[in-house]
Amino acid sequence: MDYERIKHTALQHKITTVDKVLELFKDGAVVASSGFTKAGDSKVVLPALAARNKDYPIQITLITGASLGNDTDAKLTSSGILKRRMPFQVDRVLRQAINNGEVLFVDQNLSETSEMLTDNQLPTIDVAIIEAAFITAEGDIVPTTSVGNSPIFAQKANKIIIEINTAVSTDLHGLHDIYIPEAYPNRKAINIFSPNDRIGANSIKVDPEKIAAIVFSNQVDSPADIAHIDTKTAAIASHLIRFLTNEVASGRLTKSLRPLQAGIGKVANAVLASLEQGDFEGLTMFSEVLQDSSFDLIDSGKLMFASAASITVSEACYQRVFNNLEKYRDKIVLRPQSISNAAEVIRRLGVIGINTAIEFDIYGNVNSSHIGGTHMMNGIGGSGDFARNAHMSIFVTQAASKGDSISHILPMVSHVDHNEHNVDVVVTDMGYADLRGLAPRERALKIIQNCAHPDYKDALQSYFDRAVKEVGGQTPHLLEEAFSWHTRLKQTGTMKHH
Amino acid sequence: MDYERIKHTALQHKITTVDKVLELFKDGAVVASSGFTKAGDSKVVLPALAARNKDYPIQITLITGASLGNDTDAKLTSSGILKRRMPFQVDRVLRQAINNGEVLFVDQNLSETSEMLTDNQLPTIDVAIIEAAFITAEGDIVPTTSVGNSPIFAQKANKIIIEINTAVSTDLHGLHDIYIPEAYPNRKAINIFSPNDRIGANSIKVDPEKIAAIVFSNQVDSPADIAHIDTKTAAIASHLIRFLTNEVASGRLTKSLRPLQAGIGKVANAVLASLEQGDFEGLTMFSEVLQDSSFDLIDSGKLMFASAASITVSEACYQRVFNNLEKYRDKIVLRPQSISNAAEVIRRLGVIGINTAIEFDIYGNVNSSHIGGTHMMNGIGGSGDFARNAHMSIFVTQAASKGDSISHILPMVSHVDHNEHNVDVVVTDMGYADLRGLAPRERALKIIQNCAHPDYKDALQSYFDRAVKEVGGQTPHLLEEAFSWHTRLKQTGTMKHH
Repeated sequence: MDYERIKHTALQHKITTVDKVLELFKDGAVVASSGFTKAGDSKVVLPALAARNKDYPIQITLITGASLGNDTDAKLTSSGILKRRMPFQVDRVLRQAINNGEVLFVDQNLSETSEMLTDNQLPTIDVAIIEAAFITAEGDIVPTTSVGNSPIFAQKANKIIIEINTAVSTDLHGLHDIYIPEAYPNRKAINIFSPNDRIGANSIKVDPEKIAAIVFSNQVDSPADIAHIDTKTAAIASHLIRFLTNEVASGRLTKSLRPLQAGIGKVANAVLASLEQGDFEGLTMFSEVLQDSSFDLIDSGKLMFASAASITVSEACYQRVFNNLEKYRDKIVLRPQSISNAAEVIRRLGVIGINTAIEFDIYGNVNSSHIGGTHMMNGIGGSGDFARNAHMSIFVTQAASKGDSISHILPMVSHVDHNEHNVDVVVTDMGYADLRGLAPRERALKIIQNCAHPDYKDALQSYFDRAVKEVGGQTPHLLEEAFSWHTRLKQTGTMKHH
Repeated sequence: MDYERIKHTALQHKITTVDKVLELFKDGAVVASSGFTKAGDSKVVLPALAARNKDYPIQITLITGASLGNDTDAKLTSSGILKRRMPFQVDRVLRQAINNGEVLFVDQNLSETSEMLTDNQLPTIDVAIIEAAFITAEGDIVPTTSVGNSPIFAQKANKIIIEINTAVSTDLHGLHDIYIPEAYPNRKAINIFSPNDRIGANSIKVDPEKIAAIVFSNQVDSPADIAHIDTKTAAIASHLIRFLTNEVASGRLTKSLRPLQAGIGKVANAVLASLEQGDFEGLTMFSEVLQDSSFDLIDSGKLMFASAASITVSEACYQRVFNNLEKYRDKIVLRPQSISNAAEVIRRLGVIGINTAIEFDIYGNVNSSHIGGTHMMNGIGGSGDFARNAHMSIFVTQAASKGDSISHILPMVSHVDHNEHNVDVVVTDMGYADLRGLAPRERALKIIQNCAHPDYKDALQSYFDRAVKEVGGQTPHLLEEAFSWHTRLKQTGTMKHH
């Protein structure tokens, strides 16, 4: 026990055991937990709750910031405790349970959960679990490597369990900027005019009466998987850099671009890494997650400031950042996801949003979440928050995959997360299509020409030509054939025509 | 000629004839024109341009606020002058040309055009035509019955033609609140915290050097069609009122609700009219268009204030409003559509958005724009701006139409304008489904049960049950069958199974 980490001494008597804490969880409970892209999640209470479920089976609704680390979602799923889960996940076991209909998954735009909680549009939270670096003298919670939805959980939950993680340095105090938009109808402006503007407090205000228990953990976050940058990913990045370079050359953007948002994963990481090579300077980020590449860009002097809701990095990068925090302290800020993903700020800053698509269609509609139109991959995440409000919304994917048996450009996407109105530029390893100001029939020609894999170009063009001739319309389609590529894949193992 | 209406006398020499003005329009020109939902459109220049095209054929890109009145879009289309049209239209002749592929239609969220112009993401405007009530002593333009995109057109166009409409009372000076968000990266907050907040000027600032010509017109706007409230529309309204009444009873809303947005047309009109009967008080609107029902609600004392981008009313209502302007002066404001539809303000005010769907599917995805997945009706309009950022996004439609041969609830929509993430409540004449916090499989059961027409309930339930059993997933679908209702309608004239 590290009493030093509870500076508000009157709270020290709330320290208890994990076993004791578990008594707070009843069947049917609505449970909220810190955790955003594997960072700052509950290390002991949620795993213990999963373990208890063998002997004492209950079912709960679990709301988090985004994904959890440490296989916690897998453990919870296997235990049978999850009745309902929101707003995001990336776990293989949970994903399967969702797709089997065993867990009800409420896939939400990441800015939305806190809005709905503020407004009592979701059930009341019975218990919230919040990972903390320490508790201040005033009794406030200093979060760890993510902020996520923790501030609104602390505000709205009936009971709060604080998990103090002694593996996290207390030096990160000051990295966070905690601000909760006021309840309606008295909401004020979110006064962020530059990614480095601070508008809130360094810690999460909490009603001491609601603190039901304090427990300790000592375990760092699950590290991010850093994928090797393969040829396709490098090609995608180079096309995107070419597009951005053209924008600068045309005078529409300066060398500092606009604040960047990048989705999580290997493509986004590669794109950010490429910016180091390009002729850019004075870059900033207004994003959800700080990945390894963000810190590489800071180290290279290209990235001046990065705002996000979490830090999710490899083990090596974790050491680099937290052993040299003074170097990064004035270059990063962690915000609640209601602010990192706020429509108001994204639009005001003119963010350039770069997100990954599972597939897009010839008109530029994007599927970010569903395999085959039915099976959930991870969820929409923050892509909708950014795509809808960005100055420029860019989606990237490979043109084809699995030995080119799957084309990622299709006649019609099997699920629409982002429609053509919110998709300005699409990029594959084949090239990019700048769709701004174009009508659907023009978009189709450009996408097929610039982005499709050569093995599928003729078939896409044939679909489009026949749709124009046989049906016509603003958005020509052959409804009988629109999903035939998906069904062919299912039946024959390839989208190719034989 | 009414020199009185050009108070900046140095501009009086710019008065010219319409014939002379037409010389400004060259082949390939990008032309912008005032006009939003038939209000404040060009009465003489655009029609004359259409007429000239017989003898002097050119092609142009035409950008407006939204739809035009006086069959102007029909005349332009028939003349062959339209190469490209954005961002919205409601004209029968133009619609056909769009669907035939003769006019390229760039269907845009109504808040987006000005954003793209500000940022030079659309081609430069060669000539803008702006209808004015008069020109102030400072040389500024006082708009008429709409603001729409006129401020940004005036700012970005190379040349400006002012059409002074002497049929419009100069008394409407003061109704407008003109504010253009600053260019990036220096954008400030939009300081509207209540629908009646004013943040700008009474008139549109314009560089006198850019004023190429001033012409006069004397013709009021095309009147709105006021449709009879039929049984189905009344039923939709009553279910929606029942939902809102329940929200008040639950304590989630007060009797003044939140600022209301209502799409244009008969259902929205009926819903607003019903609010007069319900137990509500102190209502406000933050919407796009003021219709007859808005003024009825003001007269009844229920509606305290209404903010919009235009006034589009019947002939009788037009007289009532403009002959009694003092009565309404402090109860209404007309704003640019970049402000009436601004994400920042819609979210901050917690607007309740009520929009019409062409069809929605069992998971709550909405099609607002396309017939049969291919043919453009009007466009997405402002529905996306509101649905994505509203506190609560409500979509309404009839359960079935055309002798019940068409079901408006379908296995899968043939075009997605609003996906399930941005659809909170759906209402038909059968009932409403409150979808907040539900997973897709739960949404389906509620929508089929509460909203589908009895003739289609079993078939929808059968589709869902088979999709769950045969395919499963987060969003169960049978891709081979998903559009079979649309194709059956096309082949047999009805969606019914025989």
